[in-house]
Formats: sequence, structure tokens, C-alpha cells
Amino acid sequence: MTNRLPFTLHATDGNARRGTLHTAHGPVETPVFMPVGTAATVKAMLPETVAQTGADIVLGNTYHLMLRPTAERIAKLGGLHHFMRWDKAILTDSGGFQVMSLAKIREISEEGVRFQSHLDGSSHMLSPERSMEIQHLLGSDITMIFDECTPFPASHQTARESMELSLRWAERSKQAYQPREGYGLFGIVQGSVYEDLRTASATALNQMEFDGMAIGGLAVGEGQAEMLRVLDFTVPQLPDDKPRYLMGVGKPDDLVEAVLRGVDMFDCVLPTRSGRNGQAFTWQGTINIRNARYADDPTPLDAGSTCPASRDYSKAYLHHLVKSNEILGAMLMTWHNVAFYQRLMQHMRDAISAGTLQEFAENFLRRYTKQ
Amino acid sequence: MTNRLPFTLHATDGNARRGTLHTAHGPVETPVFMPVGTAATVKAMLPETVAQTGADIVLGNTYHLMLRPTAERIAKLGGLHHFMRWDKAILTDSGGFQVMSLAKIREISEEGVRFQSHLDGSSHMLSPERSMEIQHLLGSDITMIFDECTPFPASHQTARESMELSLRWAERSKQAYQPREGYGLFGIVQGSVYEDLRTASATALNQMEFDGMAIGGLAVGEGQAEMLRVLDFTVPQLPDDKPRYLMGVGKPDDLVEAVLRGVDMFDCVLPTRSGRNGQAFTWQGTINIRNARYADDPTPLDAGSTCPASRDYSKAYLHHLVKSNEILGAMLMTWHNVAFYQRLMQHMRDAISAGTLQEFAENFLRRYTKQ
Repeated sequence: MTNRLPFTLHATDGNARRGTLHTAHGPVETPVFMPVGTAATVKAMLPETVAQTGADIVLGNTYHLMLRPTAERIAKLGGLHHFMRWDKAILTDSGGFQVMSLAKIREISEEGVRFQSHLDGSSHMLSPERSMEIQHLLGSDITMIFDECTPFPASHQTARESMELSLRWAERSKQAYQPREGYGLFGIVQGSVYEDLRTASATALNQMEFDGMAIGGLAVGEGQAEMLRVLDFTVPQLPDDKPRYLMGVGKPDDLVEAVLRGVDMFDCVLPTRSGRNGQAFTWQGTINIRNARYADDPTPLDAGSTCPASRDYSKAYLHHLVKSNEILGAMLMTWHNVAFYQRLMQHMRDAISAGTLQEFAENFLRRYTKQ
Repeated sequence: MTNRLPFTLHATDGNARRGTLHTAHGPVETPVFMPVGTAATVKAMLPETVAQTGADIVLGNTYHLMLRPTAERIAKLGGLHHFMRWDKAILTDSGGFQVMSLAKIREISEEGVRFQSHLDGSSHMLSPERSMEIQHLLGSDITMIFDECTPFPASHQTARESMELSLRWAERSKQAYQPREGYGLFGIVQGSVYEDLRTASATALNQMEFDGMAIGGLAVGEGQAEMLRVLDFTVPQLPDDKPRYLMGVGKPDDLVEAVLRGVDMFDCVLPTRSGRNGQAFTWQGTINIRNARYADDPTPLDAGSTCPASRDYSKAYLHHLVKSNEILGAMLMTWHNVAFYQRLMQHMRDAISAGTLQEFAENFLRRYTKQ
């Protein structure tokens, strides 16, 4: 397979890696956190503000976009980048996860998943072929194979059958995918918490040769310790020369722990969703800005940040806005959180280059988790 | 009375005037539209974005701010400008209008209005003296006298008694107000739709010598034709050398008609509230972006605008965002509408300087109202 989505490794530090993924819409510096732009918008943020935080790439959701405004409409309007005015890279998920968590009624078969829209009850089919078609119509720089996200907890047999179905769908995804320069297709390792299944999944996917490898089926309720245990035996199964993406993760301390174990890419709704709910991430852990202690606090969330939302607005003002359900509250809190995540990733990239990630991680975790 | 809030007239065109109001927080070019920042935020906009549309001044609401976060808290945090990060001018209303429209239970007396908060039922008093104190604590560049906004319709006797109460409250407001250089106090003409009452109100207020004169009690359901009829006989009663402010107005065609009649200042929630509801102002009238006709429309709301929200985002994208209840939809639609209002005012200021306001108004109204 030709290397259509080149991944350059610049440095390693323990198991952690510092690299650049070269996409059709610019370079993505790794380890990277991808803000989630579910419905063609990172909620409550202008696209230029997202870029200003340092984000090189955002995630779009196939399930949401296929239902509204539809992939065909977005294609006709010039593709997802043009539609949402985001000229940097986009990764789209396959729809497999959300069709199971959001759709009203769904019926899974060898062919794929037939489901009813949570919006209007209309009937739809998602299959490996249809998912590839949608992601192609959207113009995603990084397409994810269509898989089944194994529920948690799952017995060994259930996890095995689910993982094997995902492998057959991975093969069909590969066949249906239309390769282009600067664009890539990622495989997704499943197998729940079972080492033999994760190994079997990774081995089979490695042979299919994808442009990157994702780890799916985690951050679904197993807890951080169990997630890290699974990473400990799964990451070593993945190719060294391709990016590794831990899907749907996570909290800042999850990111640090996973980067230490060699993960390169992340996405999570946490910074955006928490922001809308009044939770702010700080180097000393999370705070709930609704708390009365902030009503008279003239200090900003992070005086040392270059992000205006973090540096220029008082906690007292943010407290007032969030308590008053003002949209500006959601805007500023989201902006701060996304900027915080980007700063955290920048610190980790710098530390890997300097060979000081372990020290950074210990200092960060001590302050952040107040251990 | 010394001229603490200088108003310079640059040009007149018919009854219309082009001027500059020199406030402690910078010049305000008139005729001016003031976006409404009820709870210390122009809803769904960053303060720098509001300034970027060309706004020199915003309005804050005494009623909302006295209840949350309270005027005393804002004063302790450095005043309203600092609190909301708006370093240009601020006008605050007196609370008189909203205590009548929003408070749960209110009891009006010669002393003032005792009421229960719509937020938590707590008991409060608003009087001329308390309103002046609150607006002083907020640090408003322009303070409005505490008056009673006469309901519509009102009999001549009701309107007269209400207007006379407002005159007594105006006198008490003047006594309680603490004059400062660059700050001013505006009187408010009442009298419902009755020429003799408007004349009596204006005459009495003129003798008290305020820094500017407002026309209250309009845009309360009387309709545009009746409002313009009242302006026709009220505006000539106001001093030529002071700014004239038509409170709570209005639609774009209202603004044009009122500027033609010599009004200099306006405020209205319409551009912001409509934006959150999916209504966009255009030179060809308003459009509802939710309409299915926009689902595939790749054109922006106003290709000729310098406002990014108006120029850079397709109607199809705005349609999608608003239909999906995305916060970014409210952000972009509000931004566009506020920018549209500011452009309209700039066009009128330019036309007055050029002596072409009548022509501009006819062209605008023909296109806007599709007459």
C-alpha cells in the first residue's frame, strides 16, 4: 500500500511519540486532541476561534450529518470543510457508535444496521459501504471503518463475536473506500477488555494495512484503571509507523496516561459539553463556575494563558453568565476548555521533544488530581 | 448647567441630524443604534465582536442587573464596563419599564415601585433615588431618569396622571443624580399619544435641563403610523442642541422614519432576539432562515457586507445550524443582525452628511418593505 497519509515521527520519549500527520488539509501535530464538531460545528465556537486555540483537526459525526443536513446535501454544497468553514483537517467517525446509542430502533445484521432516526423516525441503513460513501461525500481527511462498538460489560463470547463482525466490516470498508492522496482510512481494534481478542483484532487489522489504527470500545464505563490496563497490552500490537487513535477519550489525566503509553490521537465531547454545563478545566482540576464562591472572584480562569476566554474574563463574570443561562457563558467556557486541552497537548508535545514527558506527567497529575 | 456630555452637531438634512456625543468612554456617532446588553452581555456575542460591528455604545438594564448579579457586586468588581469587558459607552435604563413588565407583584406609589423579583420572589424597591444610585454604581455613561412608562392604550386622564408622576420622579432623579464629566442624565418625555400632554411633559423637562431627551411610552403597541404621528408633534418640542433618544425602537423602517423626523438615538432587542429565533434582516426585508428554501442556498446573507457572519457563511449552513438548535446559529444570526443595524445607521449618517437622506430613505424603504 502506498503511503497516502504520511506520518512522520520526530521524537520518542519512553513509549510516547511526537509526530506529524500530513493531511490534504494541512499538518496535524501529534499527540493531538480533536475537538468534536458533531453537527458540522464545534458547539458554541466560531471555526476561526477553534483554529486559534491551536487545533489542527476536528471530528465530525457521520450519524448526525447523514440525518441532517445529509451527506448528499453537504457534498452538493462543496463538502464538509467548505460547509462549516473549516479548512484544516477533519476526521469523521463511521456512525457505528452513535447508531447504537442514539437511534430509536435498530436492527443489526451481517449487512449492517437498519435504524430509525432519533430526529423524525425516518428509516435508514448504515453498512460499511454506506458509511464509506457518506464519509467520502463529506470529504473527510480521515475516514473510520464501520465497526460495532462492543457494549460494556461483554462476555468473552459476545466480545469475540462482535470483534469478528467488526473485522468482516473492516474488510468491506477497505474494499469500499476510495483512496486519495492526503486522505486516509483507519482500522479500529475491538475486543473489549480481553487481551487475546484485542491481539487477534489488531493482528487481523494490521494485515489489512490501514493508514492509522484506532482503539475502540474503551471509555464506555470500564473506568480509567481498566482502560489503561487494556492500553498496556493493546498499544504494543499496533504498528510503530502509523498514528494510534484512542476513540472517545477523555479527561485530561486520561490523555496524559494514554500519551505515556504511546497513543497519538484523541477526541472527546468533554471540553465542549462540560463548558456548556459550567465546568471549567484548570491545572488544579475541574471547577464548577456556578459555585457561589466565584460570584465575587475577580481573577480569570487562567491568567497565564494566551486564550482571551481564559485570561481576560473574571470568574465572577463567567459565574454570572452561566447562572443567567446566557449564551456568552457557554461560548466563553467552551472556548476556555478547548484552549486548555490544546495547551495540555502542546505541553506534552514539547515535553516529548525535550525528553521530559515523565516529569511533566508527574507534575501535571499531582496538581490536577491533587494526589 | 455646564455641558458635561457635549453633543456636537455636524450636519442637518431636513429634520435629520448628524452628530457626535462625547462620553467618558469615547465618542458616539449619531444617529446611533444601541444593541441591548440586558444582563451585562449582548446575547450570544463577544464584546469585541459587538465593537467590530461599529457599535459605539450598548444599553444595560437596571432591573436585570440590580437583581443579578446586583449593582453593588458590579461596583465592587470595577463597574459594568470592566465587568462585561466593554470599554466604549454604556447607557442604562432606569428599571421603570421592566419592573412593570417583568416583576411578579408590584405596587406603585408616590415613593416608587415595590416589587418581587421574577427570579426568586425576593422583595425590592425602585425609586428615583435608588435608580440613580444603581446606575451610578454601574458606572453608566448615560443615566435615564426613573419614570413610569404609561401603558397603551391609556385614557387622557390616566396618561396625564402618569406623566405628572413621571415629572415629579424626574425632578427627584435630577436631585439624586451625581454629575460627572463625560457622563449625563437624560429626561424622558411621556404623555401617551396626546399632543397636549407630550407638550406639557417636554416643556417641564426642558426647564429641568437634562443632558439629553428621550421619548418614552412608544413602541408599546400603538403601531408605526401612530408612533410617527406622535413623533411629528413631539420632536419639535425637544432642544436642538441635545441628543434625542426614541426608547425601545425598533424595526429598520422605524429607524429610518424616526431619523427623518430628527431622532438621534435608538435601542431595541429586535436584532438580537430575532437572531436567536432565526430571523435575519436584509436590504430586501426580513427572512426566516428556517424556511426550507434556504436548505440548499449556497449564498451568504449579505455578500456586500464586511461582517464575516453576513458575508462568509452560506444560508444553507445557517439554516442547518438554526434547525439543529446549534448555539453557533444564534451566534452568527445575532452577529449578522447587529452588523446590519450598524450598517443601516452608518448609511444614514453618511446620507445626512451628503444631504441625501430623503433619497436614501425612499430607496431603502422601497426595497425593504417591497412597496
